[in-house]
Amino acid sequence: MSTNNHAPTVETRSTAPFYRPVGDEAEVFRAAARRGLPVLLKGPTGCGKTRFVEAMAHELDRELITVAGHEDMTSADLVGRFLLKGGETVWVDGPLTRAVRSGAICYLDEIVEARQDTTVVIHPLADHRRELPVDRLGTTVSAAPGFQLVISYNPGYQSVLKNIKESTRQRFVAIELDFPPPDVETEIVAHEAGVDAATARALVAVGSAIRTIDGSPLREASSTRMLILAGGLVAEGLGLRRAVQSAVVEALTDDRDVIRALGELVDAVLPGP
Amino acid sequence: MSTNNHAPTVETRSTAPFYRPVGDEAEVFRAAARRGLPVLLKGPTGCGKTRFVEAMAHELDRELITVAGHEDMTSADLVGRFLLKGGETVWVDGPLTRAVRSGAICYLDEIVEARQDTTVVIHPLADHRRELPVDRLGTTVSAAPGFQLVISYNPGYQSVLKNIKESTRQRFVAIELDFPPPDVETEIVAHEAGVDAATARALVAVGSAIRTIDGSPLREASSTRMLILAGGLVAEGLGLRRAVQSAVVEALTDDRDVIRALGELVDAVLPGP
Amino acid sequence: MSTNNHAPTVETRSTAPFYRPVGDEAEVFRAAARRGLPVLLKGPTGCGKTRFVEAMAHELDRELITVAGHEDMTSADLVGRFLLKGGETVWVDGPLTRAVRSGAICYLDEIVEARQDTTVVIHPLADHRRELPVDRLGTTVSAAPGFQLVISYNPGYQSVLKNIKESTRQRFVAIELDFPPPDVETEIVAHEAGVDAATARALVAVGSAIRTIDGSPLREASSTRMLILAGGLVAEGLGLRRAVQSAVVEALTDDRDVIRALGELVDAVLPGP
Amino acid sequence: MSTNNHAPTVETRSTAPFYRPVGDEAEVFRAAARRGLPVLLKGPTGCGKTRFVEAMAHELDRELITVAGHEDMTSADLVGRFLLKGGETVWVDGPLTRAVRSGAICYLDEIVEARQDTTVVIHPLADHRRELPVDRLGTTVSAAPGFQLVISYNPGYQSVLKNIKESTRQRFVAIELDFPPPDVETEIVAHEAGVDAATARALVAVGSAIRTIDGSPLREASSTRMLILAGGLVAEGLGLRRAVQSAVVEALTDDRDVIRALGELVDAVLPGP
Amino acid sequence: MSTNNHAPTVETRSTAPFYRPVGDEAEVFRAAARRGLPVLLKGPTGCGKTRFVEAMAHELDRELITVAGHEDMTSADLVGRFLLKGGETVWVDGPLTRAVRSGAICYLDEIVEARQDTTVVIHPLADHRRELPVDRLGTTVSAAPGFQLVISYNPGYQSVLKNIKESTRQRFVAIELDFPPPDVETEIVAHEAGVDAATARALVAVGSAIRTIDGSPLREASSTRMLILAGGLVAEGLGLRRAVQSAVVEALTDDRDVIRALGELVDAVLPGP
Amino acid sequence: MSTNNHAPTVETRSTAPFYRPVGDEAEVFRAAARRGLPVLLKGPTGCGKTRFVEAMAHELDRELITVAGHEDMTSADLVGRFLLKGGETVWVDGPLTRAVRSGAICYLDEIVEARQDTTVVIHPLADHRRELPVDRLGTTVSAAPGFQLVISYNPGYQSVLKNIKESTRQRFVAIELDFPPPDVETEIVAHEAGVDAATARALVAVGSAIRTIDGSPLREASSTRMLILAGGLVAEGLGLRRAVQSAVVEALTDDRDVIRALGELVDAVLPGP
Repeated sequence: MSTNNHAPTVETRSTAPFYRPVGDEAEVFRAAARRGLPVLLKGPTGCGKTRFVEAMAHELDRELITVAGHEDMTSADLVGRFLLKGGETVWVDGPLTRAVRSGAICYLDEIVEARQDTTVVIHPLADHRRELPVDRLGTTVSAAPGFQLVISYNPGYQSVLKNIKESTRQRFVAIELDFPPPDVETEIVAHEAGVDAATARALVAVGSAIRTIDGSPLREASSTRMLILAGGLVAEGLGLRRAVQSAVVEALTDDRDVIRALGELVDAVLPGP
Repeated sequence: MSTNNHAPTVETRSTAPFYRPVGDEAEVFRAAARRGLPVLLKGPTGCGKTRFVEAMAHELDRELITVAGHEDMTSADLVGRFLLKGGETVWVDGPLTRAVRSGAICYLDEIVEARQDTTVVIHPLADHRRELPVDRLGTTVSAAPGFQLVISYNPGYQSVLKNIKESTRQRFVAIELDFPPPDVETEIVAHEAGVDAATARALVAVGSAIRTIDGSPLREASSTRMLILAGGLVAEGLGLRRAVQSAVVEALTDDRDVIRALGELVDAVLPGP
Repeated sequence: MSTNNHAPTVETRSTAPFYRPVGDEAEVFRAAARRGLPVLLKGPTGCGKTRFVEAMAHELDRELITVAGHEDMTSADLVGRFLLKGGETVWVDGPLTRAVRSGAICYLDEIVEARQDTTVVIHPLADHRRELPVDRLGTTVSAAPGFQLVISYNPGYQSVLKNIKESTRQRFVAIELDFPPPDVETEIVAHEAGVDAATARALVAVGSAIRTIDGSPLREASSTRMLILAGGLVAEGLGLRRAVQSAVVEALTDDRDVIRALGELVDAVLPGP
Repeated sequence: MSTNNHAPTVETRSTAPFYRPVGDEAEVFRAAARRGLPVLLKGPTGCGKTRFVEAMAHELDRELITVAGHEDMTSADLVGRFLLKGGETVWVDGPLTRAVRSGAICYLDEIVEARQDTTVVIHPLADHRRELPVDRLGTTVSAAPGFQLVISYNPGYQSVLKNIKESTRQRFVAIELDFPPPDVETEIVAHEAGVDAATARALVAVGSAIRTIDGSPLREASSTRMLILAGGLVAEGLGLRRAVQSAVVEALTDDRDVIRALGELVDAVLPGP
Repeated sequence: MSTNNHAPTVETRSTAPFYRPVGDEAEVFRAAARRGLPVLLKGPTGCGKTRFVEAMAHELDRELITVAGHEDMTSADLVGRFLLKGGETVWVDGPLTRAVRSGAICYLDEIVEARQDTTVVIHPLADHRRELPVDRLGTTVSAAPGFQLVISYNPGYQSVLKNIKESTRQRFVAIELDFPPPDVETEIVAHEAGVDAATARALVAVGSAIRTIDGSPLREASSTRMLILAGGLVAEGLGLRRAVQSAVVEALTDDRDVIRALGELVDAVLPGP
Repeated sequence: MSTNNHAPTVETRSTAPFYRPVGDEAEVFRAAARRGLPVLLKGPTGCGKTRFVEAMAHELDRELITVAGHEDMTSADLVGRFLLKGGETVWVDGPLTRAVRSGAICYLDEIVEARQDTTVVIHPLADHRRELPVDRLGTTVSAAPGFQLVISYNPGYQSVLKNIKESTRQRFVAIELDFPPPDVETEIVAHEAGVDAATARALVAVGSAIRTIDGSPLREASSTRMLILAGGLVAEGLGLRRAVQSAVVEALTDDRDVIRALGELVDAVLPGP
């Protein structure tokens, strides 16, 4: 129930994450990393942005510190705050400050969801200064060698109200990711879900069919992540059709008519029952 | 008046909850549970979502920790917070963190009501990472075996403003529940309210009649829960008609005209006075 | 000026509150109470909802704990919070938790005014679980025998924005109250205000006349409570007409034209000057 | 600079406030006071509401505790709050609670400006219960004999958004005040400003002229308070015309055209330069 | 870096501020001051409101305490708050309370920007009561002799949403200020900027020309303050035209077309290059 | 992880920052600096405002303290706050107060993003008073010689809602900056990115082409900063076309059609592949 905060653990991975490059995204990332330039990943939900960063961190042998952005996140959540300890206020570094000090890759996922002060706080880290002003300490921390900032967002998502500020975007090298081509996606689904190639191919066919519906009523397409989820249910013994229903169709929409239409599409694509 | 928080109790159930499966919902849940995949329950209010989770937790012999979402819920309510104790700040795990550590099923009821930071916080728990970043501790907690995330919501309810984010939905195996067919619902009402089969059948007939009104002016249909409530009043000696009036008709609407119309419908369905 | 919070007092009543039943509301309440079912009281302002609950609590010999809902009320106001005491944080139960522990009737007046988290917090108390999750303690408190939840609201009041959630209503046995018929109301006014029957009858005549204005410009009708107030002024020596002016007419509206029209109506109804 | 809060002082007045009754407002107030009924004062800004309450408190020999409502006022500002003292949290009564305990008149000026929780908190004080629930103490304080609640507001001011709730109004005896007739107002201005009758009469003539402009562009009329202010400047040696300009014309509006028009009206009303 | 708050300093001035009266503003101020009446200064930005108050405070030999209003200012910022000190909460007076206790002039600049509670808090100070209720202390502080309240605002600025409440305005003697006539303004610019009369006259000519543009697209006119600023740049060696460009033209607008038009106007007014 | 705040470091630079003046901006800045006048820098994102301030601070041999404005910044973030230390509350100066005490240049970047109280707090620093009222300390701090306020913003950015208040602007000497002419920009890109003149010239040609698109759909133009970023990627071995794609095209927009159009423009401008 009670836990001391003396030994915070960081996200470490001993085995290489499974990632299959699609274009020259790794090449651009490596160039940016060599120079310490910040990277902006753009791409739809579930296309593999997180995996890509994990793979690059592993290849570059850097610690990876991930923070998920949300509406209520403030700069203190990134930079740190004072806590009361034995009657003293003690400063505790936030994940961004830890990454800055230790030279890690700091991956701010869906940062556009956060309040603006969290994006402004990264400006001096994202230009020639490479330093983090910690106003509450009256300090400025210089980034250790190896520190790299990576932020991600989904362009299809953003409204006029919620967008990355131009003055933020300008500081980043932008890399666009998309769903992988069928062959690569089949390999990924088979590997991640633990299903045979035929099952994976069938799932990828379902995914591609849904992604290419003309004038789709869906707000998001069927992602690689969903296909892996469906594969997982198959690996646990569920029928292919039932797995797709739960992990793809019902997950994509609540609209009865759309559910029925998607079901017919899936029936047409899937082999047999 | 004053209570120490040394011995928090958790929700435990020694006897099997009464649940009658309608389709293959239990089969899908079991497959997801074997693989530790998160589950999204969709269905109208009062159709038995909570009971279903209780039954599955009992069958799988897992502890069940339930949290009801609401507008003001923040991620700290799920993850935990620092409290002052004897001049020291001590960390107290929230219900989600407790479930993650102990390998319990964590059921987030109507999570869509909560602020967005509460849904973002579950992302890394809901994908291949199966870990909970506890930013304020600077820690990441790996989910113990057996941990499973279950969230629920009522699709008929959601507005454009309040919906599950696509990037959240994608991580879940979706199971749709609905009101049970008459025979099963009669069995449930009789068992839960402690009334005879004839009374239960009459109540289910009332419920079905209201659910199938053409162009119903009601925002919600008469749920199984309401029928059980009406049955309970009958079991306490109230007349069937009066019980339906209080537990169904007056509970469904405040509109005088609709109350009168529903009353006439009930009169037509119920046997005798 | 300074008060220790060691000995909180609760609302107790030694003599039976004056209440005259109008329909079968007491019968339904008793059935719900026997089974521990939660009750939702619907009715216009000032029709006697509070009195009804006080009378039922007295008849059933239960402690009554009343909480008035308001816009800024949060779940902590109901459930409890941590306070600092001698360097320790000590938990102090809120009124709802006290009622749950002691088996009292907890009456949440105009709960619809409160923020949504206060209504969601009562869900597990209002269904078969009969338990209150106290998230901040990591505890779930089972309701003591005798605990009963009663909530009230005024249907004429509610807007689309402020309404009881369907998933909340469904859990309650609904009882509708209205202004009593003239004879009963005359008895009530005479008793409560301490005036003779003739005065009370005259006041009730005024009240009825105002309630039945065609296409009334008033947002609320002249309530029993207002008539008692007017009676009280008469009992203190004010003229009947003047008392009605202050306690009814001026209290109902600020609009000069409506005040004049109501005045003429009152002149027509009241006997003599 | 630093002050201990051991000896809070209350608002006391040794000499009778100057107040001239216009109608039967004092009679109604006395009747309400005898019975402990709460009073709602309605009237335009600066017509003498505060003076009236001060005069009644003096006549009835009750302590008067005044609180000015504002947008950010919460129930804690009225009821009290916990403060940290020597490592202990100590409860400090708010002005309302002090009035309740000591049997004073509590005058809540412009309460409609406050947040709704401040009005709901006075409900149980304003009906037959005459008690103040102090949720944070878990206590209910019964009003001492002599306690009386007085609230005021300006009906001309209120919008749909900001109004007294019907369920609040209903609990009060309403008294409407207005600007006094010329003779009384002349007496008041002469007395309060310390000017001769001729000057006071001239000022009242200005006030009346402005109040009766057809289709006035002013949001508020020239109040008794403004006339007293102008009189005060005259008593300090300023010319009558200049005093009216500063204390009435420029105070009423910023619009150049309206200022000019009012100036011409004043020139026509005032005797000589 | 760390400073104890034992010896707060107040704003004092040993030499007379430079102020040239334009109309009878000083005469009205003196009359109000003799009687302790509160003063409302109206006038455009940069016309000398602050200077006027400084000059009057110096003439009357009163301490001047200035507070700049802003959107987030609360009444606590004016009245005071509790601070934690050595485990005790100690009350620290705000600037308004200090002025009330010491009999200083309290100048609330642009008070209309503040939240409403800050304006309501000054009501009892601004009428016959001359006292400040300090709710959190449970005290009412009577104003020391010499205390005077001065507030200012810019009428051209205010929207419907942000205006001084009528019930606040009514309590004040209003004094309207405007830019001084050319001769006086030339004297002021020369004195304040330290430039010769010719330069000052040229700058005043520029200012007058901009103020009298027909249908000006500017939200504010070129103020005396701006002309002094331009004079200061000239005194530091910048050319007159360049100084006007930076301190007047570019400061007034960002619109390229307006900047060009203003530039042409300036060229026409200024002597030579 | 834990850091004491005893030794806050300030931003210092030992080598002269690389800055190439375009017009007379340095001359105006020097004049303002000699007189201690505050400076307002206007110009598009990425045109070199920060660099210009760094260069001037270096030339004038002043410490530079930079604060990035954001929506949630409050005056306490600038002025300072109380922190708890060993049971005592200790005041910690904010960056603005430190600059005021030490005579540094305080550069408030994009201050228009901050809440209004942060701009109002600088008013007395930005006029003849040159002092900072620290309300929470009850102190006013006089600016040390050498203190200078510099604020910046991007006029193309501001909406009606978010703009510098007129009463703030008026206090500043305004300097407008823009992108440098091609020759200067080529020199800057070559120097900062570490590429040869030909590459820099090609990048500047791309930048100029994008800036001069007729009726551009872009919210911001391709800035000098972006060109340097692209140069950096080239210096790390990426092809010129690929570098421009990531650092300019994808960073400027998410719109597929605009990306394609910009790509064609870049193809036309860049030499060879």
